[in-house]
Amino acid sequence: MIPTPASVKESNVDVLIIGAGPAGYMAATWFARMGVDARIIDKRSTNIVTGQADGLQPRSLELLHSFGLGYHVKKEASVGYEACFYEPDEEGIIRKVDTKPEGVPGISRHNGSVIHQGRIENWFAGAIEEFSQGSMRVERPILPESLQIDASKLDSTGAYPVTIVLKKLSDESASPEQFGHKVENGLYCQFQGDQVAQAGEPAESKEIFHAKYVLGCDGAHSWVRKQLGIVHAGETTDDVWGVIDIVPITDFPDIRRRCSIHSKNDGSIMVIPREGDLVRLYIQLTEVPHEPGANGVSTSGNPEKAKDAGEKARADRSKITAEAILEAAQKIFKPYTLEVAETRWFTAYQIGQRIANAFQKDERVFIAGDACHTHSPKAGQGMNVSMQDTYNLAFKIAYVVKGLTKPNILSTYEQERRAVAEDLLSYDTRLAKLFSGKPGEVSTEEFRAVIDKGSAFTTGCTTNYESSLLVDKPSGLPRDVPYSSPLARNLPIGIRIPDAKFITECDGRPWFLHEKLPSNGHFRVLVFIGDFGRIPKLKANLNQIGTFLSMAESFLRKYTCREEESPIEAMLLHCSPQELVDWGEFPLAFRPRNSQRIMDYWKIFADRPSFHDETINGYRTYGIDKTIGAAVVLRPDGHVAKVVEPTTEGIMEINEWFEKFMIRSAGN
Amino acid sequence: MIPTPASVKESNVDVLIIGAGPAGYMAATWFARMGVDARIIDKRSTNIVTGQADGLQPRSLELLHSFGLGYHVKKEASVGYEACFYEPDEEGIIRKVDTKPEGVPGISRHNGSVIHQGRIENWFAGAIEEFSQGSMRVERPILPESLQIDASKLDSTGAYPVTIVLKKLSDESASPEQFGHKVENGLYCQFQGDQVAQAGEPAESKEIFHAKYVLGCDGAHSWVRKQLGIVHAGETTDDVWGVIDIVPITDFPDIRRRCSIHSKNDGSIMVIPREGDLVRLYIQLTEVPHEPGANGVSTSGNPEKAKDAGEKARADRSKITAEAILEAAQKIFKPYTLEVAETRWFTAYQIGQRIANAFQKDERVFIAGDACHTHSPKAGQGMNVSMQDTYNLAFKIAYVVKGLTKPNILSTYEQERRAVAEDLLSYDTRLAKLFSGKPGEVSTEEFRAVIDKGSAFTTGCTTNYESSLLVDKPSGLPRDVPYSSPLARNLPIGIRIPDAKFITECDGRPWFLHEKLPSNGHFRVLVFIGDFGRIPKLKANLNQIGTFLSMAESFLRKYTCREEESPIEAMLLHCSPQELVDWGEFPLAFRPRNSQRIMDYWKIFADRPSFHDETINGYRTYGIDKTIGAAVVLRPDGHVAKVVEPTTEGIMEINEWFEKFMIRSAGN
Repeated sequence: MIPTPASVKESNVDVLIIGAGPAGYMAATWFARMGVDARIIDKRSTNIVTGQADGLQPRSLELLHSFGLGYHVKKEASVGYEACFYEPDEEGIIRKVDTKPEGVPGISRHNGSVIHQGRIENWFAGAIEEFSQGSMRVERPILPESLQIDASKLDSTGAYPVTIVLKKLSDESASPEQFGHKVENGLYCQFQGDQVAQAGEPAESKEIFHAKYVLGCDGAHSWVRKQLGIVHAGETTDDVWGVIDIVPITDFPDIRRRCSIHSKNDGSIMVIPREGDLVRLYIQLTEVPHEPGANGVSTSGNPEKAKDAGEKARADRSKITAEAILEAAQKIFKPYTLEVAETRWFTAYQIGQRIANAFQKDERVFIAGDACHTHSPKAGQGMNVSMQDTYNLAFKIAYVVKGLTKPNILSTYEQERRAVAEDLLSYDTRLAKLFSGKPGEVSTEEFRAVIDKGSAFTTGCTTNYESSLLVDKPSGLPRDVPYSSPLARNLPIGIRIPDAKFITECDGRPWFLHEKLPSNGHFRVLVFIGDFGRIPKLKANLNQIGTFLSMAESFLRKYTCREEESPIEAMLLHCSPQELVDWGEFPLAFRPRNSQRIMDYWKIFADRPSFHDETINGYRTYGIDKTIGAAVVLRPDGHVAKVVEPTTEGIMEINEWFEKFMIRSAGN
Repeated sequence: MIPTPASVKESNVDVLIIGAGPAGYMAATWFARMGVDARIIDKRSTNIVTGQADGLQPRSLELLHSFGLGYHVKKEASVGYEACFYEPDEEGIIRKVDTKPEGVPGISRHNGSVIHQGRIENWFAGAIEEFSQGSMRVERPILPESLQIDASKLDSTGAYPVTIVLKKLSDESASPEQFGHKVENGLYCQFQGDQVAQAGEPAESKEIFHAKYVLGCDGAHSWVRKQLGIVHAGETTDDVWGVIDIVPITDFPDIRRRCSIHSKNDGSIMVIPREGDLVRLYIQLTEVPHEPGANGVSTSGNPEKAKDAGEKARADRSKITAEAILEAAQKIFKPYTLEVAETRWFTAYQIGQRIANAFQKDERVFIAGDACHTHSPKAGQGMNVSMQDTYNLAFKIAYVVKGLTKPNILSTYEQERRAVAEDLLSYDTRLAKLFSGKPGEVSTEEFRAVIDKGSAFTTGCTTNYESSLLVDKPSGLPRDVPYSSPLARNLPIGIRIPDAKFITECDGRPWFLHEKLPSNGHFRVLVFIGDFGRIPKLKANLNQIGTFLSMAESFLRKYTCREEESPIEAMLLHCSPQELVDWGEFPLAFRPRNSQRIMDYWKIFADRPSFHDETINGYRTYGIDKTIGAAVVLRPDGHVAKVVEPTTEGIMEINEWFEKFMIRSAGN
C-alpha cells in the first residue's frame, strides 16, 4: 500500500482524466457539459503554444460545433478546399498533374481546417469553464505517481475502486521543451514526463484520488498504459520526416492549396496551408544521421526510449536542423523558389505504427488517443481520432456515473474505437509506403487512387460502429459496407447521422439538423412521421405515438423523475404542407411544457420549402419515404442506433431496446 | 468664456462622441477600427440591461458582420423568417389571413434578428476594446456642461475648434431608471439627464476637451442638438402604445412568428418573438389616462418636456401598468389565451414624429440617430437607422482627421442621411395610420400592401445615396428608382453592393464577397476583368491596368508613403476557368508583397464553380457581362461610388475621381 502521511490530501472523484491534450480535453468537455464530477490533470505547466497537430477533419469540426465552439474555427482557421498533386515529368521537372477536392464534397457542412493545436485546447478550456460554471479546469503541473485498482470494489457502482497518487510539480520542472524556450538548437522534443525522467523532480505536494473511473489521455508514451501493463504493439519505420511551419516567400503557384509533391530524386513533400500567412511543410528526409548505438540500443540510458524505437535504427533527431529541413524542401520545390520570411516551429520524427493490445482494464481505467494508437501524421488523423475516441467514451461513462445506465455499455468503447484504430493504421501503412516510394517504384496513379479512397475515411464522417448493445443491426457485417434499414436508406446504422435541412414548424426558420442536435448528452428519438397532413393513417399513428409517449411506461418518462430532465428527447419531423398542419393538434409529447408551463417550441420540424430557402430536403437526404416515414434513435454522439417504423409498434420496440441498458429512476 | 480653475484637466482629442447608444457605439467602433484618436462618454453609469430597441435589420447585421461581430448574433439572437397577419372575420373572431416572408428573401445573407439592445452594446464595447487595443472605452457617467465652437479656427485642419466642458457624475446620480431598479410602479422612464434635470447633481470632477469634431449621439432629447440651436420639427400623435416583454403561456399558434393582429374593437397588436422564450408585444392602448394639465401644459415643471410633447395632450404614462397593457393584449388575442410566466420589462410611449432641421453645425459638430429623427418603433427602424447614420458619418470624419481627404466630403453626411430620415418618417406615418386604423376604416389589404412595399426599405439594404462627391452618377434622379451603369446592371450606384459568391483564386475557397469586404476603412476598386483567359483583349487590358496600378501616379500609391498602407485597395475578380489561368501571370498590383516580401494572396477572385459549391455566381448576380467586365469603386461603407470600363481609360477616370477629395501623402 501507498504510505499516507497525515498531511496528504485525499479526495473522491467520479472521473479522473490524466492528460490535457485533445483526447483529455474532449472528455473533460463532455463531463462538464453533462454535469459529471470530473477532474483533469496535466504534467505540463502551460498549454502548448506552437507546433504539434493542426488539422481538424470534418467530423471533428462537427463535434466542435456541437459543443458551440464552431465560431472559433470560422474566425481563426484556414480551410482546405482543393488538393494538388505534383509529379516529375520526363525531364524530372515537377508538374501539376491533378487538382482534386479536399475531403469529400457534401459529406459535411465543414471542410477540413487547420489551426494550431494550442488554440483548439484554449477553446476547449473555455467550454469546460463555461459548462462547469467555473468549477472544472485543467490542474497542472501534476504528475501521477501510482495507480491501483481494488478488485473487491469493482462490482459496486457506488464505490471508488481506483486509487491514484498524484504529485504536484513546481512550474519550472514541468515546462515543455518547445522551440525558443529551452532547446538551444530549436529542436522540438516531445516532453516525455514519464516516471524515469521525472523521478528526481521535487514534488510540491501530493494528493490521493479515489476515482470511479480513470481516463489515460497521456499520449504515445502513456504512463497509464504502462501501469496497466498494456502492450503497445507495432514498430518504428525507417522513414524520417521533418516538419516545419514557415511564412514562405515563393513563386510556387499552389502554396495556398494542400499539395503532395513527389520529386524525381529528392523525396516528397506535403504542403499544408495554415492560418494567417503560415504554411506547414512535411518533408521526407533522405539523409539522416543516426544515433551511434543504433539497432535498438539507445545511448540515452533510457530503456523506455529504446523499447519505443522497436527494432529499427533510431534517427538522431538532435542533428536535424531547421536549415537542413528547409534545404531538403528547396530541392523538392525546384524549379520553384522557396525562401522563408519567418520560421515558427519545426521538428523531426521517425514514423512509428503501434496499437495498444487493450484499451481498458476492468472497464474502470481506460486509455484513449495516442495512448492507444500511434502512426504517421500524413492523413492528418492523430488529433482527430484522439478527440473522437473520448467523444465516444466519455458520454458512456457519464451515463453510468449518473446512474442512468448499467455499466454494460462501457464495453462498446473498445469494440468501437479499436476498429477505427485498426483501420487507421492500415490506411496509414498504405499511405506511408506510397508516399515514401520514389516515382517509378510506385505508380503515382495508385498513390492518388489510395488518397481518393481514403478521403471519406479521413473525414471521420463514415466511421461505422458494429452491432452492439448501442447499435441495433445484424452482427458480422463488413465495416466498409454501410448497412441501412429500407425505411431510411441514407441513414446507415452505426454511422453518425448526416446533416440535412429542415425548418422549425413554429417559426419557419431553416436549420441544418445538426444545429439542433447539440452534444448535451441526450439520446434522441427522431420520429419522421411522413406526410400526416395528407395521409390519415399516419395522422392516426402520430396521435397514438403521442399518447404512448405521455404514458409513465414510455422511455421519455420512466428514466427520470421530472420529464423535462429526461435523458431521452423526442423530436418530430414531418413533411406536410403548412396549410394542412395545425399547431394545436401536435401531440404535447413533442411540444412539452416545463414546470412553469413554458412550452418547448423547438422539437417539431418540417421538410417543406421556406420562403428564404428552397433547398429544404431532409426526407430525400435521409432516404425516407414521405408516405411511410421512420423512427430513428440517435446516440448522444449522433450515431444512428436503431431504425423502426413510425408506429406504436415501432416506438414500443424502441422502448424495449432502451430497457437493455437504461436504469429506471427511483421515482418510477 | 468658461471659467477654468487650475485643477480642471484640459485635453485635446480629435473626436468626442457624446452618448453611448447604438449610434455612438457604431461611431466609436469605426474610429477604433481606423485608429482615430476618439473618446466616447455617456451620462449613464452602466449599459442598459433590459428593454429598449431590439430589432436588427439585415443591413445592420451586415455591418455587425463587417466588424467581425456576426457570430454573437448567430449565437444569441432570435431570427425572423415568417410574418403572419390576423384579422377579424365576419363574426369578429381573429383569423390568420396571410403568411409572408419576413424581410425580402435573397436581399441579404442575414434575416432580421431580435436581441436586447444591451447585448448589442456589449458586443460593440468588446470590438472597441479589441480594435483600440484597450485604449478606448466608454467613459461614464459623464455629462456635458457646455459646448462652444471657435469660428476663427474652423478653416484650420490642425486646430481644435470645439470646446466642451464635461462633468463627471457620481455613479448613483446617473443610474438609469429601469424596471426593478428605481421606479416602484415598474414604469420605464427614459433617463432624461439633460441640464435642467441634472443641474443640481454634484460633479465629482470637471474636464475640458478641445476637439476637432464632436458627435452628438445623445438621443431624442439631445443636449448637443439644443446647444446648436437646431429645431426638432414635428409633432406627437394621439396614439399611445404599450410595450411588454414576456415569457408567454398561450395556445396562440404563431407566437414564434412575427404577427400583426387587428381585432374588431380592441385595437391592434404586434408580436415580436425574441431570444430564448421571450416575446415582445406592442399594443395599441385604447384607454389612456392623460396628464391633468394637457395640451402642452405640463405639470412636471419641466418646460422641455412640454415642448417635446408638441401640441397634443400628453398621456400620463405613470398610470399605465404592466397589468393594464397585458389586459389590453388579452382582449386582442381572444379567443386564444394569453398568460404570462414572467414579465421582463414594459413601457408605454406616445408616438412622436420629428426630424431635426439640421444634422450638423459648421461641419464640426454633428448629430446622429434619435437626435436627428424620432418616430414610432413599428417598422423596427430606430436602432438600425441610428447605427447606419454614424456608419455613414464616422469613416468620413476619420478620413479627414487622418489627413487623407479634404473636409469637403463631410457635407455628404447630411445630404445622404437626411433623405433616409425623411423616407423613414414618411413610411412611419403611413404605417402608423394604417396600424392604428380600425378594420373597416382602413382596408387590411391596403395595410399589407404598404408593408410589402416597405419590406425592402426596412431591410436597410436598398438605401440609395444621391449624386455627390462620393457618388458618381447623374444628379436629380428619383431616390426610389435605382440607377445602374449598363456595365454592372445589378450594382446600382449609391446603393451598398449586394452580396455574391466568388472563390479565392489561390485556394479555391468559396466566399460571399461581403466576407472579404470588412469595414476596415478602405475604399476599394473591384476590377471585374471578365474572361481574360479566353479573350486576349481583356488579358491585354489586365496587364495594362496592372502596369498603371504599379506606377507612382496610381491611386494605389499616391495617397500613402508605404503601398501596404494605402487607404485604397485593388481587387481582381475574373471568370476564366482554372486551366486558362496562371497564378504567376497575374499583375503584382493584385498580389502585392509587403516590406517583408510576404505576398497578399487574398485579392484575386474567380467566378467559377468550386468543387464544394456549384452556386458560385458573382458575375450573373452583379449583371456584369463576362466578355466586357466592369471596374467598380466601393466606398468604405460598401456603397457603390462609381462604375467604369475595366480598361486603362476607366482606371484613369477612377484615378481622377479620387483626386477630387483625396490628399496626396507628404512623401509623394
